[in-house]
Amino acid sequence: MGNSIGKVFRLTTFGESHGAAIGGVIDGMPAGVAIDLDAVQHELDRRRPGQSAIVTGRTESDRVRVLSGLFEGVTTGTPIGFVIENENQRSGDYGNMRDAFRPSHADFTYTSKYGIRDHRGGGRSSARETAARVVAGAMSRQVLALQGVDIYAYTSQVGNIVLDADYRKYDPGCIEQNAVRCPDAEAARQMIDLIEQVKRDGDTIGGVVTGVIKGAPVGLGEPVFDKLHSALGAAMLGINAAKGFEYGLGFGFAGRRGSEVIDCFVKASDGKIRTATNFSGGIQGGISNGEDIYFRVAFKPVATLLREVETVNAKGEPVVLAARGRHDPCVLPRAVPVVEAMAAIVMLDFLLQNRSSHI
Amino acid sequence: MGNSIGKVFRLTTFGESHGAAIGGVIDGMPAGVAIDLDAVQHELDRRRPGQSAIVTGRTESDRVRVLSGLFEGVTTGTPIGFVIENENQRSGDYGNMRDAFRPSHADFTYTSKYGIRDHRGGGRSSARETAARVVAGAMSRQVLALQGVDIYAYTSQVGNIVLDADYRKYDPGCIEQNAVRCPDAEAARQMIDLIEQVKRDGDTIGGVVTGVIKGAPVGLGEPVFDKLHSALGAAMLGINAAKGFEYGLGFGFAGRRGSEVIDCFVKASDGKIRTATNFSGGIQGGISNGEDIYFRVAFKPVATLLREVETVNAKGEPVVLAARGRHDPCVLPRAVPVVEAMAAIVMLDFLLQNRSSHI
Amino acid sequence: MGNSIGKVFRLTTFGESHGAAIGGVIDGMPAGVAIDLDAVQHELDRRRPGQSAIVTGRTESDRVRVLSGLFEGVTTGTPIGFVIENENQRSGDYGNMRDAFRPSHADFTYTSKYGIRDHRGGGRSSARETAARVVAGAMSRQVLALQGVDIYAYTSQVGNIVLDADYRKYDPGCIEQNAVRCPDAEAARQMIDLIEQVKRDGDTIGGVVTGVIKGAPVGLGEPVFDKLHSALGAAMLGINAAKGFEYGLGFGFAGRRGSEVIDCFVKASDGKIRTATNFSGGIQGGISNGEDIYFRVAFKPVATLLREVETVNAKGEPVVLAARGRHDPCVLPRAVPVVEAMAAIVMLDFLLQNRSSHI
Amino acid sequence: MGNSIGKVFRLTTFGESHGAAIGGVIDGMPAGVAIDLDAVQHELDRRRPGQSAIVTGRTESDRVRVLSGLFEGVTTGTPIGFVIENENQRSGDYGNMRDAFRPSHADFTYTSKYGIRDHRGGGRSSARETAARVVAGAMSRQVLALQGVDIYAYTSQVGNIVLDADYRKYDPGCIEQNAVRCPDAEAARQMIDLIEQVKRDGDTIGGVVTGVIKGAPVGLGEPVFDKLHSALGAAMLGINAAKGFEYGLGFGFAGRRGSEVIDCFVKASDGKIRTATNFSGGIQGGISNGEDIYFRVAFKPVATLLREVETVNAKGEPVVLAARGRHDPCVLPRAVPVVEAMAAIVMLDFLLQNRSSHI
Repeated sequence: MGNSIGKVFRLTTFGESHGAAIGGVIDGMPAGVAIDLDAVQHELDRRRPGQSAIVTGRTESDRVRVLSGLFEGVTTGTPIGFVIENENQRSGDYGNMRDAFRPSHADFTYTSKYGIRDHRGGGRSSARETAARVVAGAMSRQVLALQGVDIYAYTSQVGNIVLDADYRKYDPGCIEQNAVRCPDAEAARQMIDLIEQVKRDGDTIGGVVTGVIKGAPVGLGEPVFDKLHSALGAAMLGINAAKGFEYGLGFGFAGRRGSEVIDCFVKASDGKIRTATNFSGGIQGGISNGEDIYFRVAFKPVATLLREVETVNAKGEPVVLAARGRHDPCVLPRAVPVVEAMAAIVMLDFLLQNRSSHI
Repeated sequence: MGNSIGKVFRLTTFGESHGAAIGGVIDGMPAGVAIDLDAVQHELDRRRPGQSAIVTGRTESDRVRVLSGLFEGVTTGTPIGFVIENENQRSGDYGNMRDAFRPSHADFTYTSKYGIRDHRGGGRSSARETAARVVAGAMSRQVLALQGVDIYAYTSQVGNIVLDADYRKYDPGCIEQNAVRCPDAEAARQMIDLIEQVKRDGDTIGGVVTGVIKGAPVGLGEPVFDKLHSALGAAMLGINAAKGFEYGLGFGFAGRRGSEVIDCFVKASDGKIRTATNFSGGIQGGISNGEDIYFRVAFKPVATLLREVETVNAKGEPVVLAARGRHDPCVLPRAVPVVEAMAAIVMLDFLLQNRSSHI
Repeated sequence: MGNSIGKVFRLTTFGESHGAAIGGVIDGMPAGVAIDLDAVQHELDRRRPGQSAIVTGRTESDRVRVLSGLFEGVTTGTPIGFVIENENQRSGDYGNMRDAFRPSHADFTYTSKYGIRDHRGGGRSSARETAARVVAGAMSRQVLALQGVDIYAYTSQVGNIVLDADYRKYDPGCIEQNAVRCPDAEAARQMIDLIEQVKRDGDTIGGVVTGVIKGAPVGLGEPVFDKLHSALGAAMLGINAAKGFEYGLGFGFAGRRGSEVIDCFVKASDGKIRTATNFSGGIQGGISNGEDIYFRVAFKPVATLLREVETVNAKGEPVVLAARGRHDPCVLPRAVPVVEAMAAIVMLDFLLQNRSSHI
Repeated sequence: MGNSIGKVFRLTTFGESHGAAIGGVIDGMPAGVAIDLDAVQHELDRRRPGQSAIVTGRTESDRVRVLSGLFEGVTTGTPIGFVIENENQRSGDYGNMRDAFRPSHADFTYTSKYGIRDHRGGGRSSARETAARVVAGAMSRQVLALQGVDIYAYTSQVGNIVLDADYRKYDPGCIEQNAVRCPDAEAARQMIDLIEQVKRDGDTIGGVVTGVIKGAPVGLGEPVFDKLHSALGAAMLGINAAKGFEYGLGFGFAGRRGSEVIDCFVKASDGKIRTATNFSGGIQGGISNGEDIYFRVAFKPVATLLREVETVNAKGEPVVLAARGRHDPCVLPRAVPVVEAMAAIVMLDFLLQNRSSHI
């Protein structure tokens, strides 16, 4: 259970990091959309290992193969099945992990829950699974673009390097200009320096991704349990290593008075009702209000350190692990396209759900 | 859509603040549990308006009437329907809100989404709906208690008054000893002073609730999309006025190195595998690991100010609103039992879901 | 689990026959529909006990009380909660059934499954629960009527009295002209005679209800697992005492050659593509094709006989049951409005689901 | 939407008959089951085209490739993704069907619903999709076998050749001894003769499959909407060409009196409570009662005739279709393993659902 997301637009994923392949099925894709598969592959390439010096050196080409649901390049309304073969399995690298429970990984919990675990490189709990989400997200973005919805994300914190202004200060066009996907060139340089330093130290570092959704129509969200931000939060928290989610002013609201942070309505020059400020983050009462939706996702440092760590094996015996394999010193750069993908999947689902709100 | 939560254990709620009644249906409650309805009513009383000087002065007795699913006091496995009549409707108080869009409320978004809105006191978007969640949560807690799971929450921040230690420092037995539900007596006093001050100012104030789940068995959570923390996060974010969620070290991870915050496994004196530290917050890979689960939920200040605010009506014309009625200056004290209820609902659902993990 | 039906338009019911009340929650009702509550009550009256000499003599007024989701008579898009109080509980009538397992009832299976059973009159397994479905169905019909969809059902067989022509021969306006709800006056008279005879014999009798859906737009149904007829079939089979479902020629297809029963397409005088015949029953490939949808539902004889029957109690000891209480000698007349209600619930759900089929 | 079945054990399928591949994802498979993939392939071979003279002459090897969810041959609790490549696409055969709407096929309804259709051989509406169901069913059977549940089906009617005794008269060991999968050798011979005759005539013929489930534990089924027979019915009706479903005495109940067909409880020699007869078909009140579950599924004649048929194209213009390609003259022999597969999928889902019925 638990391998599907969405109600009307629904993604189901499968696959372990070192099995034959990963992939997924998209059900509920509306018919009649011409899908640009090169753009889908481009998103996969943004998530791919080996793309820069600050991410894992593993090399996987991550080529997606679409098996169904498109006819002559256009969605048919039938489910879109797709697979990405696992090329670079090298499971020998992981042999010593068969019995050991790596600290802050899912080894112990998977083994405890299921009584069995594919120990090769994390198995199902590996972030490799997110490639399937990126495929579905990339297709969703293309549908959303037809409706005027645009989504982007960027790295806004790595360790103690923090972007101090809000998203409106940064040009999304600059995000892809550096390996860490930070739109501020100077901060990006510092983040990269920091990541290289922790890598040299055999260590890892946490951070924050900021996500932005522009152009969402008013009315998306299904209170009281499927509020738009609840679904966005669940989707973001479901990304590997995510530990926190906030939208609008988020935790910043806790220290504020109402008079400081209410968003008064005004009539805009085009006649539309808008809010003068947007502390709410584009969602009120769980429903989009037409303003920009923005949110932040906290990521912990990658748990695999390139140094010896003490832990126990399945018998509870102490063992020392010396991680081999190739690992990310910082998950942030590769998390950015996953955050975008999950946002797109959620937004498309709610766009379609909203079609039933009126007679 | 969106008025149900849970997969195997599932709550559906209904009701507007000023309609005839609110209520819900619980489906999937296991048979054979003797339910203490007094304990259920006690939880409702903790959420009830008018319980102290720092919450809204509205008075509702909030008596729950269970209509089905119990036979001679014991659950029968059939759905539990229940209603709470709305006694104190005084809808005249809200007459001037018929056309105005209150800032940072759901008036505009509901009207835009549905083309119609029950304008009396928030209608469906009113926090009154959470009483139904408290009923289901209170029953869930009783089932969880049979399994050794204990849940509590407390106010850990109001405005600039912040508890600086983590949950282990505070005695849950002290939470109910003050009106703000903060286990630190001195901080509680300061929080109450602050709330009284903002109330005098016709203003409101935000804060944070910390939730703790003790005794959860290893193995709860359904990766990859229904990770335990994703579901907890969605449930918490679905509470009125919630704007952020983090678990374990949460956003605190962003500034840390992996070597500082990995939770090494050790063999405990009872032979069980435990973690030496618990930065993870009791969940690894989306599955409970047997340690305490702890999380924080950020709440914005209540949007209704007892002062004049400028906004627009449905035609976009400027109007000045002078809130009447009786409103909470701070949502925190009454949010505590709702946080507990939502945690209980989620935990019971995952406890039952986990029954299918093995052959 | 299992007390909800529908995906986008979703009904959840609760209640036992001899508990405090039965009721339900409708989630996903589109906003903006003026609901005629008198028409809803009228449907309930058609299902009500005591309405004629050939149904059970129990008297329940079955007044529905809507608690939410309507504002000034119009749907608001929020869930519609409703209750019907149980007035005529007389549970003393059922005292001797506490331990006995009535033959062909659900006593044994409920007790076995849940370990506990509300033995009063069938509890949750009582057909009384279908009153909640009739409420939801009656509201659904009103929405469907706005879209030009019309639904009716009638008794087409009681025992050996069988209507031999298909639905097109009968005037739906005649259905309500007799107590058995058969549009053929002569057959109706025979059916009523037969029912009165079996009643005098302390016996019961089975039959068939035919359902007809006219005006359904082309395109409803979600292959491959939620084909329109699969959902209709599941809904009909979920009615108490239903034992079979067929649509179009149904089991009649088994003996036929393809050349006899294919429905060739033709261009109608209005330019629309139609089928020259309609053996398919208005659904092809699981999707409505614009022709009339028609189907038949088989009902077994009521299991409660007004004579002594031998069975066992929970210990397996032989007991003789002499049914008291008041029971239907034939479920057919009261099943007709339930068949209509379930058809309406399914059709509205699929009408809304279909809104996502295109971009 | 609509491409998933099951709640706790859930299959999602994808794929068109002439796309790259078909396949599916199984979510909710309990961990710890050693899966015999040869047995899975054997079930696929039973459904495969070209297996005998009375089915379509198309040749597809239908080799399943499992991509995930098994580790060293054992289920891990993670989703099982699998694909079956489409080898024999020959889409040229179907070129003349691009614009024509084949009578009693899904061409018209798919095109109307989605505005686009993969016209090659039925696309998604092709029975080829059922191969994915057979994979999931074959795995489900293996899990069910561990619980003592055994499932089989057989052809009980082809045209006017009808098995007149009930399932208890026939040896399931004889089913696979002939090409039509009928356990009565003489009837099988007549059925095969009839199928060969209709094939020579360029025609097709309908029939009935009987399904039997032995060893199901008491307690499976989730009233009131997910009764076991409702779910079985929906699953069976979702098979291509299925037009009717009945269980136990089914439509045969309509002509009977209660006194003839109630199933009295008795204490069996092993102390268990059993029913003396089993008209109910092993399900009472929607829940299995421990007796054999048996049901019948009606199939229409294959709609593709090997003769000229008149129909219209998308513009409504009359066209004459002369089917090419290779088609089944009778769907029954190949429907048998699909009926078994769907029964297994449903039964496993309900077995797992039932784990939550008690505390």
